[in-house]
Amino acid sequence: MLLALPAGKSAVLIPQLLDAGMKVVDGGPDFRLHEASAYPRWYKFEHPAPALLKEAAFGIPELHRDEISKARLVAQPGCYATAAILALAPLAKAGLIEPEIIIDAKSGLSGAGRTALSLPYLFSEAAEDVSAYGFPAHRHLPEIEQELGLLGAAPEITFVPHLVPTIRGIFATAYAKPRVPSSQFSVPSQTEEAILQCMRDFYADSPFVHVSENLPHTKWTSGTNHAFLSARVTPDGKRAVLLSVIDNLGKGLSGQMVQCMNLMFGVEESGGLEARAVYP
Amino acid sequence: MLLALPAGKSAVLIPQLLDAGMKVVDGGPDFRLHEASAYPRWYKFEHPAPALLKEAAFGIPELHRDEISKARLVAQPGCYATAAILALAPLAKAGLIEPEIIIDAKSGLSGAGRTALSLPYLFSEAAEDVSAYGFPAHRHLPEIEQELGLLGAAPEITFVPHLVPTIRGIFATAYAKPRVPSSQFSVPSQTEEAILQCMRDFYADSPFVHVSENLPHTKWTSGTNHAFLSARVTPDGKRAVLLSVIDNLGKGLSGQMVQCMNLMFGVEESGGLEARAVYP
Amino acid sequence: MLLALPAGKSAVLIPQLLDAGMKVVDGGPDFRLHEASAYPRWYKFEHPAPALLKEAAFGIPELHRDEISKARLVAQPGCYATAAILALAPLAKAGLIEPEIIIDAKSGLSGAGRTALSLPYLFSEAAEDVSAYGFPAHRHLPEIEQELGLLGAAPEITFVPHLVPTIRGIFATAYAKPRVPSSQFSVPSQTEEAILQCMRDFYADSPFVHVSENLPHTKWTSGTNHAFLSARVTPDGKRAVLLSVIDNLGKGLSGQMVQCMNLMFGVEESGGLEARAVYP
Amino acid sequence: MLLALPAGKSAVLIPQLLDAGMKVVDGGPDFRLHEASAYPRWYKFEHPAPALLKEAAFGIPELHRDEISKARLVAQPGCYATAAILALAPLAKAGLIEPEIIIDAKSGLSGAGRTALSLPYLFSEAAEDVSAYGFPAHRHLPEIEQELGLLGAAPEITFVPHLVPTIRGIFATAYAKPRVPSSQFSVPSQTEEAILQCMRDFYADSPFVHVSENLPHTKWTSGTNHAFLSARVTPDGKRAVLLSVIDNLGKGLSGQMVQCMNLMFGVEESGGLEARAVYP
Repeated sequence: MLLALPAGKSAVLIPQLLDAGMKVVDGGPDFRLHEASAYPRWYKFEHPAPALLKEAAFGIPELHRDEISKARLVAQPGCYATAAILALAPLAKAGLIEPEIIIDAKSGLSGAGRTALSLPYLFSEAAEDVSAYGFPAHRHLPEIEQELGLLGAAPEITFVPHLVPTIRGIFATAYAKPRVPSSQFSVPSQTEEAILQCMRDFYADSPFVHVSENLPHTKWTSGTNHAFLSARVTPDGKRAVLLSVIDNLGKGLSGQMVQCMNLMFGVEESGGLEARAVYP
Repeated sequence: MLLALPAGKSAVLIPQLLDAGMKVVDGGPDFRLHEASAYPRWYKFEHPAPALLKEAAFGIPELHRDEISKARLVAQPGCYATAAILALAPLAKAGLIEPEIIIDAKSGLSGAGRTALSLPYLFSEAAEDVSAYGFPAHRHLPEIEQELGLLGAAPEITFVPHLVPTIRGIFATAYAKPRVPSSQFSVPSQTEEAILQCMRDFYADSPFVHVSENLPHTKWTSGTNHAFLSARVTPDGKRAVLLSVIDNLGKGLSGQMVQCMNLMFGVEESGGLEARAVYP
Repeated sequence: MLLALPAGKSAVLIPQLLDAGMKVVDGGPDFRLHEASAYPRWYKFEHPAPALLKEAAFGIPELHRDEISKARLVAQPGCYATAAILALAPLAKAGLIEPEIIIDAKSGLSGAGRTALSLPYLFSEAAEDVSAYGFPAHRHLPEIEQELGLLGAAPEITFVPHLVPTIRGIFATAYAKPRVPSSQFSVPSQTEEAILQCMRDFYADSPFVHVSENLPHTKWTSGTNHAFLSARVTPDGKRAVLLSVIDNLGKGLSGQMVQCMNLMFGVEESGGLEARAVYP
Repeated sequence: MLLALPAGKSAVLIPQLLDAGMKVVDGGPDFRLHEASAYPRWYKFEHPAPALLKEAAFGIPELHRDEISKARLVAQPGCYATAAILALAPLAKAGLIEPEIIIDAKSGLSGAGRTALSLPYLFSEAAEDVSAYGFPAHRHLPEIEQELGLLGAAPEITFVPHLVPTIRGIFATAYAKPRVPSSQFSVPSQTEEAILQCMRDFYADSPFVHVSENLPHTKWTSGTNHAFLSARVTPDGKRAVLLSVIDNLGKGLSGQMVQCMNLMFGVEESGGLEARAVYP
C-alpha cells in the first residue's frame, strides 16, 4: 500500500495496517527519522510508535536496497532529501569529503501539492520570481543528517531551499571540501575524477542514477524516476561542487515509492517506471 | 474613491457614498449594466438602486470622456470588455462591420486576483496549459453588447475567454464581416486600410490607444495603461480580424480607473499613468 | 522511414526512396496538397513529382485509415491542421455546419523546432507574451481547406494562429454555424448534444481521439498522441464553438507519424504510443 | 555616454572617447579589473590601455560613490557581481565574516541579451528547466574577488551561477562563516542581528539598497534599480546565509549605469530611476 498523509496521521494508522499484515510505503514524514525524540521538535507531535521508527527502512533503494526488500514498512524521504543524499552519500561513505556541507536547493512548485492553495503557489505570484524559504530549519534537514551520518562522520549541514518557477524538478547544489591525501592527487582534475569515479562505483548497480561529467538539467528528469549527478572541483582543489537533479514527483516522491514497492514484493526494481508519468 | 467589491456589495454601499458627496469609480460590476433587469440574470441579485444604473457613466474614457468628466459615479468595465470594446467601437459606430461578431480572448492569470486561491490558478496547473472557460455565458458579454449597441446596430456576439500562462495581458481577437460598398473599395487591402483609418480617427485624441498595421503583443502593454490595436482583412475581403491588447490590471482595471478619476477631477487625463506599475 | 525536411527538399528525395522500394512518412509539407498548382503559391517551388501528389495519403489516420494502410507515401499534416481538422471533420462530413468557419489557434513554442534560433522564440521574448502571426495566409490553411472540402461543401476558412508561452500544446477554437433543421432540434442544448454525438460517432473506432462535454486543456495531451475535443452552442442556437487540443509534437507531429507508420506496416495502430515522450 | 560592447572592443574605443573629452560608463568588462595581467587569462586579450585600468572607477555607487562622482570612466560590473558584492561588502569591510565564501546565484534569461540566439535561451529549452553553467571559472568571479579584497582580507570564493526560467532577476545566496567574538554575541540570533545591522549601517545613505529580516523575492525588483538584502544565521551560529536580489537589467545593468552617470554629472543619484523600465 502506498500512503501519503499529513504529519502525525500515518504514525497512528500504519501500526494497524502492519498488524493486519499489509506492507506499507509511507510518503509522509512519520517514519523517516529513527529517533522518536526528533518528532516533537521537527513535527510537533509525540510519536505513538517509536519501535516502528527503528524498524522502518529509509526509502532510498540505492542506499538501503536489502533492507527495503525485507521491510514491512518503508519511509519515503522528502524530495529535497532524496536529491541531496544521492549526491553526497558516495562521498560520505568513502570519506572523501569533510563533514561541513552546504546544500543550496532549487525546487519547482508542484512539490507543494494540489491542495496547497496558498498565495505563494498562485501562478501570478510564483511566475517570474525566485525566493528562499524555510531555513535555517527546514524539516528535510534532520533526515539528510541522519542518512549521511549513518555512512560517515556526523555531517554539519546548512540547507537552504529555494522556489523557482517550474512545475517539476529539484536541482540540488552541494558544496563540500574534498578530503584527499595530497600525496594521492596532485592536481584538482584528479580530485574531480576521483569524486566522479566514487559516485559511479556507488551507483554501478542502480538503474536510475546516472553520473556524468556533464552538468545536469532538471528537464532531463521530467516525468521519470531518474537522477543525474555530476561534480566539479575548484582550480585550487579546495572545494567540491556536487550537482543532483531529480523530478520532485518522480524520484522525489511517487516514482521512488513504486521502486521501493517493487523491491518489497520481489519484482523487477524498475517495473512500471520505464514510462513517463507527467501530471501536472 | 476607487472601489472594488464583490458583485452586489457596492450596489448597496455606493448610494450612501454618493449621498455623502463623494465621487466614486467602481471597479466591480454593480453599475456596468444600464438595465436593472439584467442583474438577476447575470449577477444573481436584484439591483437596489436602478436609478443610479441610468446615471452611472461606463468607464471607458475613449467612448465616454465627457460623460465621465461630469459623473459622480463611473462603472469600470471588465478587463475583457475593455479590450474587446476598444477594438470594435470605431467600426460599430462607423457602420463598417456587420452585427455578427466573434470575440476570442486570451487572458493572463492575474485577472483572477490575489484572493482567488483555487486550483486552476496554481502555478503547477496553469503553467504549460491553455484552456477555455466561462462560455457561452461569460459575465462580460452583456456589457460588450450594451456598449456596442449604443454605437450602432444591436450586435450578436459570441465571446470565448481562454486562460494562457502569463501573469498579465489580454489579447482579444475579434472576427467580423466588413460592411463596405463594393463600389467604394475594389480590393481587400483598401478595406483593411479603411478599417485602420477608422480606428485611427476614432482614437486621434486618446493618448493611451495606439492603432498600427503591426500585429500587437501583450508584452508591449505590461504595467501600463496603453492599448494597441491592429486589423487584417482576408484576401477575399469578406472577413476582418481585429486585434486588441491591454494589460488586464492596467487599462483593464486600475490604470483605467485612475484615468477616469483624473477626468472626474478635471486634472490631466494621463496623470499618474506615465510610470509603470508592475505587481505581480 | 520517417522524414522531416525543409519545403522543397523531400519533393526531390522521396521519389528516389519510393523507387528503391521504401515506405515513407513525410513530416514536411511537400506532399500534403494534392494540387501541384498550389505549391508555387504557398511554398514557392514548382513541384517536381505531381503524380505523387495524387498518390500520397494525407496522414490523419482518423480520416484516411484505409488509404494510409495501403500507402507507399504518407504526408503528415501541419500541427495546426491536425488540431483543426479533427474538430471539424465529423461536422463537415455530416453536413451539420455551414461552410463559413473561423479557426483561432493558440500554439506553444516548440512548434518552431530546435533550429529556430530567432528572436521571437527566445525565452525572454516569448515568456509573458501573447501574439498573433502569419495570417491571413498561413501555410496550414490550404491543407485544412483541402481536407474539409473532401468531406463536404467547400469551406471558407479564416485561420489566425497565435503564440502563447507554453512549450507544447495546440488549442484550436473553431467557430461555425450549425446547419440543423429547426424541426429536428427545438432547443440549443439539443443542437449541442447532436454535435457532440456526431463527433463521438465519427471517432468511435479511434483510440487517440476523445470527445467530451468537458472543456479540454492542452496539459491533458502533454507528451502523448491523444486529442481531446468538445463543443458548445450559444444560447440562441446560432453559433457552435468547437474545441480541439493536441500536443503539437505528439499528435501534431511525430506521434501521428508513428501512428501512420504502424498502419503502413500492419502492426497495432497504437504501437509505441502508449508511453509519453516528453522533450523538451 | 553609456556603452556596451563585446569584450576587447571598448578597451580600444574608450581611450579615444576620453581623449575627446567625453565621460564614459562602460557596460562591458574591459575596465572592470584593475590588473592588466588578468585580461589575457579571463578575457583572452592583451589590454591596450593598462593605465586606464587603474583610473577607472568600479561602477557600484554604494561602494565607490565619491570615486564615481569624479571619474571620467566608470566600469559597470557584471550583474552577478553586483548582486554578490552588495550582499558581502558590508561584512567584508567590517571583518564580520571569514574569507572563505560560497556564492550560489540564480539568474533569469534576459542576462544573455537579445542577440544571444543560442539553443539554451530558446523558450522551449529554458522553460521548465534549471541548470548550472560556467564554473568553476565564470568571468564575474575575478571582479567579485577584487572588490571584496579591497574591503578586507583576500576572499576565497566559490561561485556557481544557475539559469532559472524567469525573464528578469538575480537571486544570490552567499554562504560565509561569521567571525564574531564569542564574548560579544552569546546566541545566534544576536549574530544575525549584528549582521543585519552592519548591512543597514553600510547602506544607510543608499536609496536603492534595502536591508530587511524578511527573505527577499526577485519579483520585488522587477523593472527597478532596487536591491533587497537579508541574512540568516544557522542555529549553531556557525554559518551565515546572505541573500541579495536585483533586477539583472536594472541594478544589474542599465539602471546602475544611469545611477553612475547621474553621479558623474552631479545630478540627483536617483534621477530617471523612479519609474520602472520593463522590457522584455
